[in-house]
Amino acid sequence: MKNKSKNIELTADGRIWINTHEGKLVGKGRIELMEKIKEFGSIRQAAAAMKMSYRQAWQLIDDINTKAKTPLVISHRGGKGGGQAVVTEKGQEMIALFKSFNNRFQKFLEKEAEKFNF
Amino acid sequence: MKNKSKNIELTADGRIWINTHEGKLVGKGRIELMEKIKEFGSIRQAAAAMKMSYRQAWQLIDDINTKAKTPLVISHRGGKGGGQAVVTEKGQEMIALFKSFNNRFQKFLEKEAEKFNF
Repeated sequence: MKNKSKNIELTADGRIWINTHEGKLVGKGRIELMEKIKEFGSIRQAAAAMKMSYRQAWQLIDDINTKAKTPLVISHRGGKGGGQAVVTEKGQEMIALFKSFNNRFQKFLEKEAEKFNF
Repeated sequence: MKNKSKNIELTADGRIWINTHEGKLVGKGRIELMEKIKEFGSIRQAAAAMKMSYRQAWQLIDDINTKAKTPLVISHRGGKGGGQAVVTEKGQEMIALFKSFNNRFQKFLEKEAEKFNF
């Protein structure tokens, strides 16, 4: 993402997210949380891995499921360890959708920085 | 930036900025501040128009000038009204650079949202 400036080296940076009419559905952090849930099968462990509270992770997942109108993560509460959590097929589709969007965005940024002439 | 989803309508959103190796040089807010300075010829009036403090606007301009290695805004302190401020030629180049980058980014977002199938 670098340009060949005579003076200073400029890079292009940014963040993207996918919205519904109610606001942010997913961005980098929420997708990472879903991937950790998929990895660990647990919201509690996913939250710990991301250094966020269980409560915060729960609220994010609740927000995602509500806005998506269909569950992207299903959680079975209960017992020791906080129960099991599963990323649904729709959830995996959303992860893939965001990641391909983000890959193209990174390429976009690289191409833009090559054009920077300052 | 809308897609034609069967279920929910998704939109693509994001923010971009131009960095040096020291971090953010300009983003949407800093460019808007520079445009207001160009409009009013005054950091004080530009700050007021953006509902930020004079001190905050000063610090942003100082950060921009330091990172750019060349002044993008020149301010002549003094007298009532806080003196005059001018966006330099290099400053105007930076405004144009960011705006064209941002225009292409908005088009990128539109095209991406058309691909969203969820």
